[in-house]
Amino acid sequence: LPRSTLESLLQRATKGNRRAISRLISLAENHADARMKILSSLYWKAGKAYVIGITGPPGCGKSTLIARLAKQYRSTGSRIGIVAVDPTSQISGGALLGDRIRMGDLASDPGVFIRSMASRGQSGGIARATEDVVRILDASAIDYVIVETTGVGQSDIDVKTLARTTIVVTAPGLGDEIQALKAGIMEIGDIFVVNKGDNDNADRTMQEINSTVVMSEENHGWRPPVIKTTATTGEGITALKEAIRQHSQYLQDSGKVERKRTGELRRAFLDATKRYFEDVTLTQIVLSRRFERLMKKVETRQLDPYTAARHLLQGFRGQMPASKHKRNLTTS
Amino acid sequence: LPRSTLESLLQRATKGNRRAISRLISLAENHADARMKILSSLYWKAGKAYVIGITGPPGCGKSTLIARLAKQYRSTGSRIGIVAVDPTSQISGGALLGDRIRMGDLASDPGVFIRSMASRGQSGGIARATEDVVRILDASAIDYVIVETTGVGQSDIDVKTLARTTIVVTAPGLGDEIQALKAGIMEIGDIFVVNKGDNDNADRTMQEINSTVVMSEENHGWRPPVIKTTATTGEGITALKEAIRQHSQYLQDSGKVERKRTGELRRAFLDATKRYFEDVTLTQIVLSRRFERLMKKVETRQLDPYTAARHLLQGFRGQMPASKHKRNLTTS
Repeated sequence: LPRSTLESLLQRATKGNRRAISRLISLAENHADARMKILSSLYWKAGKAYVIGITGPPGCGKSTLIARLAKQYRSTGSRIGIVAVDPTSQISGGALLGDRIRMGDLASDPGVFIRSMASRGQSGGIARATEDVVRILDASAIDYVIVETTGVGQSDIDVKTLARTTIVVTAPGLGDEIQALKAGIMEIGDIFVVNKGDNDNADRTMQEINSTVVMSEENHGWRPPVIKTTATTGEGITALKEAIRQHSQYLQDSGKVERKRTGELRRAFLDATKRYFEDVTLTQIVLSRRFERLMKKVETRQLDPYTAARHLLQGFRGQMPASKHKRNLTTS
Repeated sequence: LPRSTLESLLQRATKGNRRAISRLISLAENHADARMKILSSLYWKAGKAYVIGITGPPGCGKSTLIARLAKQYRSTGSRIGIVAVDPTSQISGGALLGDRIRMGDLASDPGVFIRSMASRGQSGGIARATEDVVRILDASAIDYVIVETTGVGQSDIDVKTLARTTIVVTAPGLGDEIQALKAGIMEIGDIFVVNKGDNDNADRTMQEINSTVVMSEENHGWRPPVIKTTATTGEGITALKEAIRQHSQYLQDSGKVERKRTGELRRAFLDATKRYFEDVTLTQIVLSRRFERLMKKVETRQLDPYTAARHLLQGFRGQMPASKHKRNLTTS
């Protein structure tokens, strides 16, 4: 990939060109080298979009809710990014369940960018790939990025650290299994939504959640509101949008945004270091004779992999002469 | 933790002491230092247990199926480990849904070790924590380790690489969302199970899966059988156990076990290297003045985190003098 192509893509993406955004995301997913360049180039352009996490068990109507919310934001001219991490999502073009709900007009709207992570990303990589997509969207003239996850405890997507506002969606009558799922995600909600509000049991579910929320009130300094919606009709979506605005205001007023930002920078630096190690340094190490020599010892059972790793990296560090190290610290 | 305590724990664990196993797992989960020692000490003791992955959507009856299978293995004296990664699992003591199915006798059986990963492990760590638990059980006089996951695409648990035999469970009438989930896990099944076989639609589901399986036959060299079970009554469990035995035999006869083993050693060394970097090297780096200096540049926006990471690790590598490096390669 010529440098000029990448720069042209970056330029077009930051102006909101959907094709360029799409291309950048694919490049970042598939090429470690390009990824570093893209994320590095876009870094200071990001931080303008408001990231909303929407999480809840399959079947609670998240996708329809997101479609409604996106349309509300669109009606005031905002540009929207939707990242579906939930593999059951109906948002992503609706290939699987599209005939049930019409998402067509959302997908064809040039002010909306939709990306599904479900089919992509091998194990171990989805959390990072999702972060990358959110960062790229954030730098691409998008006002709101909505990230959809199932919010199941085992998911490695930490939507809470990605999002400014995390919305936990549930619905009445999802069965025991779903109630169990709920347990793990109660703590992360800034806003709770009981969808399928036209269901007979909706009010009971509202009460149940309300009573749980009260207990964790002090931990937050923000009392998470519980909002009833019926996404299929659009009922309650305006109230949800207003709650998001209030939470955003609260974050600003309480100084949490600033504090979160410094923490994020440190975390970003640490994450980038881990990734550089895995993507670049480790590749170099694997090609070294040193690695092959240790690998042989593992294969012949002279060393276990953990001890071999210690030898590998201890040496790596030990070969840094102390005097030179010190000189570097003071001179540069 | 004194070295003697650790060694006594390791010794007792390898003899199958449940308390010692439990202690070791907790230590490995919470202390990077102890983890390295434990995994390293146990490494050559592992590889004897047969690891079975059981995956399928919530509500398909995995937990009951696992309980049945475990009891079958127990009846011939085998020792069983069960690792529940699925947060909706009923296996893990049944705190949530235990009153529906009695797992009590399984949990109190000294020949069965049950560990739930659901509530543990912050994001990013569950996949690795699960691997560690499997490795520790594998080294602890356990004959069969059964790993239960939801098999949802977004889960970072790559059950296929952990397990010798992967069983994909489904059930008739789980709804559209569940059908969608199924799509992602069809490829990983060595054996398919249609549970709730007493349901009217069970045979149709059997046919559906059978037709999918035929297509991917050549990719495997093993035609995954489709087995109908009714876990609540125990119907079909013997057939399932026999299918696992046959698959195990196939792996051995086809030489796949050996090939898998070499690949696993390389992967284990690479993984151990990544972990050593994250757990030990990175901690040392973070405490260095070099890191702080670069962090300041990130905070003052002179560098983005990705470029800072490159500076950090490039320097790290550059400080390795070539001559000394070469000498090390030839002398040791």
